[in-house]
Amino acid sequence: MRYELYYWTGIQGRGEFVRLALEDAGADYIDVARKRGDSAMMPFLRGKYDGALPFAPPFLKAGKLVIAQTATILAYLGPHLGLVPGGQAAEIYAQQLQQTIADIVVEAHDTHHPISSSQYYEQQRAAAKKRATFFRDERIPKYLDYFESVIERGNGRQALSRHSYVDLSLFQLISGLDYAFPNAMRRMQKRIPRLRALAERIAERPNIAAYLQSPRRIAFNEDGIFRHYPALDPKN
Amino acid sequence: MRYELYYWTGIQGRGEFVRLALEDAGADYIDVARKRGDSAMMPFLRGKYDGALPFAPPFLKAGKLVIAQTATILAYLGPHLGLVPGGQAAEIYAQQLQQTIADIVVEAHDTHHPISSSQYYEQQRAAAKKRATFFRDERIPKYLDYFESVIERGNGRQALSRHSYVDLSLFQLISGLDYAFPNAMRRMQKRIPRLRALAERIAERPNIAAYLQSPRRIAFNEDGIFRHYPALDPKN
Repeated sequence: MRYELYYWTGIQGRGEFVRLALEDAGADYIDVARKRGDSAMMPFLRGKYDGALPFAPPFLKAGKLVIAQTATILAYLGPHLGLVPGGQAAEIYAQQLQQTIADIVVEAHDTHHPISSSQYYEQQRAAAKKRATFFRDERIPKYLDYFESVIERGNGRQALSRHSYVDLSLFQLISGLDYAFPNAMRRMQKRIPRLRALAERIAERPNIAAYLQSPRRIAFNEDGIFRHYPALDPKN
Repeated sequence: MRYELYYWTGIQGRGEFVRLALEDAGADYIDVARKRGDSAMMPFLRGKYDGALPFAPPFLKAGKLVIAQTATILAYLGPHLGLVPGGQAAEIYAQQLQQTIADIVVEAHDTHHPISSSQYYEQQRAAAKKRATFFRDERIPKYLDYFESVIERGNGRQALSRHSYVDLSLFQLISGLDYAFPNAMRRMQKRIPRLRALAERIAERPNIAAYLQSPRRIAFNEDGIFRHYPALDPKN
C-alpha cells in the first residue's frame, strides 16, 4: 500500500515520528504537503473528506482510513510495518510508551511557548525561561530515567523484546533534546547509557542512516518543537 | 474479570476517564488506592511488578496485563466493555479522539500550572492568568468546535456510530470545563448544542447517574486537573 503522510512542511515536528517509522521500514509513502503544499491538508482538516476528522496534522491516509494523532498512527502502522513485536501485551505497551513520548514532546514545546502557541517565543521569554528551568532540572531527568528503566526491563538494548517504532521515537526524542538542550543533555550523559547506545544504533540502521543524509530529513530549526534558544539552556 | 484501577486518591484527575467507562459498563473493578492508599501504586511505579512499567497513574491491571496512559487503557477496555463500535476504523478513530481529549486535558491543567507542576498555583499566578486567557479565548473554542463537528459527522448525537467511551470522556471534559471555567463555558453555550445534549444524555444513563450520586464520585476540587480559580475565569 502507498501511504500518504500529511504534515506541515518546513519542520520535523510530530510528523517526524511517523516519517522515521515509514523510512525505517522502507515503506512506500508520499509526504503529501512537501509535494503539493500545506494547503493539501486543508480538505481533511475542514471535514471535506468523508472519514475520521483530524484535529491537527500529522495524519496518515492508508487506503480509505484517515488516522490522526502520532501515537494512534504508530499503533496502526506498527504491525503493518513489522515495527512492534507480536502479541497484544507488546502492542499495548508500545502504545503506552509512545503516548509518554508524546507527553514529553508537549512539555518540550511548552518550554518556548508556556503561555500560548499563537504568540511568538519572543513575547513569552520570561515565562519560557522559568518553564525551561523546571523542564531541564526535573522533567528531562524524570522522563529519561523512566525510559532508561524501560530499556533495562526490555531486552537491555531496546524498549521491547525486539526493534520497534518506540525505539525510533526514542531516537528522535534524544536527537531533539540534544539539539534544544545540549548543556542539559551533557549533564544527563552518564545517567542514560542505554538510551545513548540505543540512539546510536538507530542512527546506524541502513535505512535511517540513508534518510538522515537525504534531503527528506529537514534540519532541526526554530520553527519546530525542539528549538535551541541559548537562554533556555545555560551552561550551568 | 475483576479489573484493578490504580489512581491517586482525592482527585478525579485522569483516572476519572477510566472510572466512567468501568462504571457505565457495570464492570467489576476495585479502585485500589482508595481501598489501600496511594502507596499501593508504588511497587508498580518503582518497577517491582514484572510487566509493563507505568510512567504515572492511572494504570489498570487486567489479569497479568498492566496498562498505563488513559487513552491506551480505554483503547484496551473499549472492546472488552462494549464501549466502542466494532471494526478497526471505529477503534482507531476512538483512540484518536481520546488522545485529542488528553491534549486539551493537559492544556486545562497547564492554565493553573504554566511554569511547573512541582510548584503551587500561587507561585505562578501571573503566568497562569496569561495562559488561561488564551485557553479560554482560543483553545476551548478550537477544541469544542472540533468535537461539535465530530458529533455532527458521527451520528449527530454521538461521536461514533453508537455509544462509546469517547462520549463518556466528552461528558467528563465538558463537566470539568464547566467547573473550572463557568463564565467561558457560558459564552460557548450556543456554539456547542450537540456536545451539550450529549453531556446531558450521558449524565442520565442509569449507571452514570447512580455513580455521580455515589461517594465513589469525588467532587471537583482545587487539587485536580480542572480547578476553579475565579482569577482565571473572569466574567467578561
